[in-house]
Amino acid sequence: MPAKYLSFRCSVPWLLLLLQTLFLSYAFSGFLRARDMYFPSSFYPEFQDVNHMVIFGFGFFLMVLRRYGFSSTGFNFLLIVLGVQFSVLVEDFLVFLRLQQNEVGLRSLAKAVVSTTAVVISSGAVLGKASPVQLIVMTLLELIFFCISRCINRKFLQIPEPLSLLHVHLFGTYFGLAATSRFPEPPPGLDKGRSTPKSDLFSMLGTVFVWVFWPSFNSLLADSKKEAVLNTYLALAVSAVAAFMLSALTSKDGKFRMRHIHSAVLAGGVTVTYTAHSIQQPWIAMILGLLGSVITILGSHCLQRRFNPALKLQDTSGVHFTFGLPAVLGAVASVVLFVIEKGIEKQWNDLSSLGYFVFFDIGAFCQTISTALITGLITGLILNIKLLKAVHVSKYFDDQIYWEVSLKF
Amino acid sequence: MPAKYLSFRCSVPWLLLLLQTLFLSYAFSGFLRARDMYFPSSFYPEFQDVNHMVIFGFGFFLMVLRRYGFSSTGFNFLLIVLGVQFSVLVEDFLVFLRLQQNEVGLRSLAKAVVSTTAVVISSGAVLGKASPVQLIVMTLLELIFFCISRCINRKFLQIPEPLSLLHVHLFGTYFGLAATSRFPEPPPGLDKGRSTPKSDLFSMLGTVFVWVFWPSFNSLLADSKKEAVLNTYLALAVSAVAAFMLSALTSKDGKFRMRHIHSAVLAGGVTVTYTAHSIQQPWIAMILGLLGSVITILGSHCLQRRFNPALKLQDTSGVHFTFGLPAVLGAVASVVLFVIEKGIEKQWNDLSSLGYFVFFDIGAFCQTISTALITGLITGLILNIKLLKAVHVSKYFDDQIYWEVSLKF
Amino acid sequence: MPAKYLSFRCSVPWLLLLLQTLFLSYAFSGFLRARDMYFPSSFYPEFQDVNHMVIFGFGFFLMVLRRYGFSSTGFNFLLIVLGVQFSVLVEDFLVFLRLQQNEVGLRSLAKAVVSTTAVVISSGAVLGKASPVQLIVMTLLELIFFCISRCINRKFLQIPEPLSLLHVHLFGTYFGLAATSRFPEPPPGLDKGRSTPKSDLFSMLGTVFVWVFWPSFNSLLADSKKEAVLNTYLALAVSAVAAFMLSALTSKDGKFRMRHIHSAVLAGGVTVTYTAHSIQQPWIAMILGLLGSVITILGSHCLQRRFNPALKLQDTSGVHFTFGLPAVLGAVASVVLFVIEKGIEKQWNDLSSLGYFVFFDIGAFCQTISTALITGLITGLILNIKLLKAVHVSKYFDDQIYWEVSLKF
Repeated sequence: MPAKYLSFRCSVPWLLLLLQTLFLSYAFSGFLRARDMYFPSSFYPEFQDVNHMVIFGFGFFLMVLRRYGFSSTGFNFLLIVLGVQFSVLVEDFLVFLRLQQNEVGLRSLAKAVVSTTAVVISSGAVLGKASPVQLIVMTLLELIFFCISRCINRKFLQIPEPLSLLHVHLFGTYFGLAATSRFPEPPPGLDKGRSTPKSDLFSMLGTVFVWVFWPSFNSLLADSKKEAVLNTYLALAVSAVAAFMLSALTSKDGKFRMRHIHSAVLAGGVTVTYTAHSIQQPWIAMILGLLGSVITILGSHCLQRRFNPALKLQDTSGVHFTFGLPAVLGAVASVVLFVIEKGIEKQWNDLSSLGYFVFFDIGAFCQTISTALITGLITGLILNIKLLKAVHVSKYFDDQIYWEVSLKF
Repeated sequence: MPAKYLSFRCSVPWLLLLLQTLFLSYAFSGFLRARDMYFPSSFYPEFQDVNHMVIFGFGFFLMVLRRYGFSSTGFNFLLIVLGVQFSVLVEDFLVFLRLQQNEVGLRSLAKAVVSTTAVVISSGAVLGKASPVQLIVMTLLELIFFCISRCINRKFLQIPEPLSLLHVHLFGTYFGLAATSRFPEPPPGLDKGRSTPKSDLFSMLGTVFVWVFWPSFNSLLADSKKEAVLNTYLALAVSAVAAFMLSALTSKDGKFRMRHIHSAVLAGGVTVTYTAHSIQQPWIAMILGLLGSVITILGSHCLQRRFNPALKLQDTSGVHFTFGLPAVLGAVASVVLFVIEKGIEKQWNDLSSLGYFVFFDIGAFCQTISTALITGLITGLILNIKLLKAVHVSKYFDDQIYWEVSLKF
Repeated sequence: MPAKYLSFRCSVPWLLLLLQTLFLSYAFSGFLRARDMYFPSSFYPEFQDVNHMVIFGFGFFLMVLRRYGFSSTGFNFLLIVLGVQFSVLVEDFLVFLRLQQNEVGLRSLAKAVVSTTAVVISSGAVLGKASPVQLIVMTLLELIFFCISRCINRKFLQIPEPLSLLHVHLFGTYFGLAATSRFPEPPPGLDKGRSTPKSDLFSMLGTVFVWVFWPSFNSLLADSKKEAVLNTYLALAVSAVAAFMLSALTSKDGKFRMRHIHSAVLAGGVTVTYTAHSIQQPWIAMILGLLGSVITILGSHCLQRRFNPALKLQDTSGVHFTFGLPAVLGAVASVVLFVIEKGIEKQWNDLSSLGYFVFFDIGAFCQTISTALITGLITGLILNIKLLKAVHVSKYFDDQIYWEVSLKF
């Protein structure tokens, strides 16, 4: 009875049609007034960079499975173009509810692309297990929940708008981990979950892309772009060096492991996300990059073996170690740096007002993580109801049930 | 007797030498005065984008055949660097004849790169059938004919210069189709005309590149760049969603077909080419993107089986459906939108002057298509004269007759 | 006893840790004050281009060996992120010694990235022979020696700072060639030193990237960016045409050889490096591009067979022909063009002051080459001391001793 659950003809196209009709009718009623939009002339190249990084870079970054290349790039592409449109719609709905200021034109699109990165990260956690229908539903739910979480941060915890968007790594990872925990586990002997040298090369191609464009990502919506670019670049450089260092230290025979490199070179960029625009001393960014890399590789090496089986965590492309742990570290670092900076400024007097701000900062991070975990669990449960026709575990990690693949070479 | 027609030593190098000497001696006599050139500082990144898209993006986009990877990227590269130089020469000749205003420096190169896109599209239609000599001759003839066609549009049909350049998809496709119809058909059982998962992945890599840089292409020479970028992005996003939707609908078992995705994600960008700078309501761009994708996939699915064999159309990489049909749709849409806009403006009075403009617009598109078909046919006939030593059909789609390929792996 | 020399656990990580600690403690003591930095808003996209070209482009450009893909991209990445940090440190040390003006922020990083290109080129010459430890030591030594060589050029030979940086191709090549001559030769029958169609495709991917971004490289630090961009683009275009022309002429049966294309399309960019910003007539840039391509292919075809074995030159990825010979040609051309320009200006009077300048120019190029050769030889000797545990010749060109590679496909 493979036909029963294999054919997506009755679900995917109609779902996409419904969504696209929704976006279109919404656009008709007036979003994105092109007339009003304003962006400085130097904004477009950076928007282009981020767009390129998310669509091309992450598409190939996720190509770690040997028989899942088409789906990795293809579904990543689909989820982003869907997610960007849906994100604009959700944002405008918040403007309508007067929960947010209006933004138009390319800046609105840029915010949507950054939001959609949460979906990309989550889809890395469920990589190979979710069917297109499940992925589309997940995209929609996640963008709504992320928007709500950002709204809480902005309204009740006084986080400025650009910073609330940068919680995207934190939200995406824990949402994805919680959602994927509701999926049936793949059988241990499933050979398709491995990578081959060829898939690793393509993944390296994507990783380098993401690495190069990361400074544009961190500086896209920042006020002080110059600092954001420079600090991010330095953090990334240090974390790349540390990635090689720690990979050789932790693996057998002192060889490098491609998977370590993929995760850890990016860790520095994630770690400085919240602080890139405000760090005044480059060495702080470099230390953060180093720590990001350390936590990623140690996480990947030690915790993955003990922690994941114990908690029944599944995480196909290792987003927990690539994006989750460095983002937590970055959150802690941003609070510590804030305390030190303000403390020095006020000569360690007036600590109660400092505590007040710190409480809000920590509160915002905890709120993001807990909202992500709870809504992720709910989403995981929703995704595995019978209606959405989950893929059988024996069909995990395989292009052939989603794509027409010619097998003769 | 393979040596008789296999060796290009006596043709390709001398032809290239002749052309390069021509370009050099022309450059010596004074073209491209670097002194005079002026371009705004923000122009270079976009020129870079378009250059990257045409050389890298299209080079890998065309890598659909399993044994034709070297030629796809290599010949694409050669034709562009030749075409850009030749295009500058032809343009300057028109300036000399006082048929056109002079433009210098990077803007002149940018126009040349856009013109050369016609050659890239046409070479997609004859992909794998034409030898380098034939491709070079085709490049030269096509650029001359495209320039003449643009000249007619500008002089007699009052099409502004930047818009006349954007007829490039229309011209490229129908020129290529007409030219390829004069080539002998490949035998039906030829196995080399298929794609493999590996070649499809490389092609996906190129497609994503072209997709990301398309807004830069549409806005490069436009006056209102902001609108052009935003409308093109939205049209591309909608057409990517629609591509997945329709691919699952039209294929067996509701699976996605990589070839559909490759063609249809770009359709939206082609469809809004003529109108991207003037559309004021984003939903119109989105509708156009949707329709572009629909026409591409339906074309690829229904017409290709019946229409192509009936008309003996050959089209290796499906440029008719990727660029041709969406461009025709875009042309119709631009006329309709113009009529509606002007009609509303004048409250549907003074329809005769409206008709006058519409007549010119429609005339320009018809002129481009018919010139492309006629000159394409002539070029096809010229390419298959004995002097140019056509490749035997059994050698179609094969790198080995053009490149030194090591076969041992 | 393979374990004896195979394990890098006791060397690479600790070396990297030492270096990274050095960079960090240095950064702590005050380099790169983010506050002071200034860069024009249009500088970032070009910095991004060059960064992308060096890390992504060269990484894949070097992927010519069939079993060395991971190392080609991975080690290239490692050497660049290390090299950039070390280069900033060395530059600041010179500032401390008052041998150089201070530069801050992104401009300082940009100079570091350009310097590190020397390392990339040298590592192309020793590709597949040096272990990570050797490569890291080579990086450090090379950047110090290059900095000294630039210092001599600036102080004693009156070469302006941006121009002295562009000696990077010359220095990188001859340093690499001298260093690699001290490595044991691979046995003649070693099969792993060949390329496969797949590795050639990836290398083509990198080559096209480098080609597209080369104008950004040549114009990054130039004063007259417009001229630099335009002249470099034209030189590159002509050299790409010439590459195809000469490849077909020199190979058997008139077929194209992928390796020729890889080297020669870039030759034009190298040749105009010193003169791109000052050439006023585009045809001169085009002639230089043509000559660069000619010297590369003739060098690769004729000299490689006779010259290399005679001098026991080893050069895995052909950097001598790709970067060395065109750079020498460019140096000669820059002197000749300078003489002609100044001669015409002064109507061939006052030739003694002209001779004075020419002497300095020629002296600078000779100084660069001879310093590169001597320090390269010394470095080669240092790299092959027992302490650094050279790789056995039977293990050359193989990912497996450095990376955990899964062999089952």
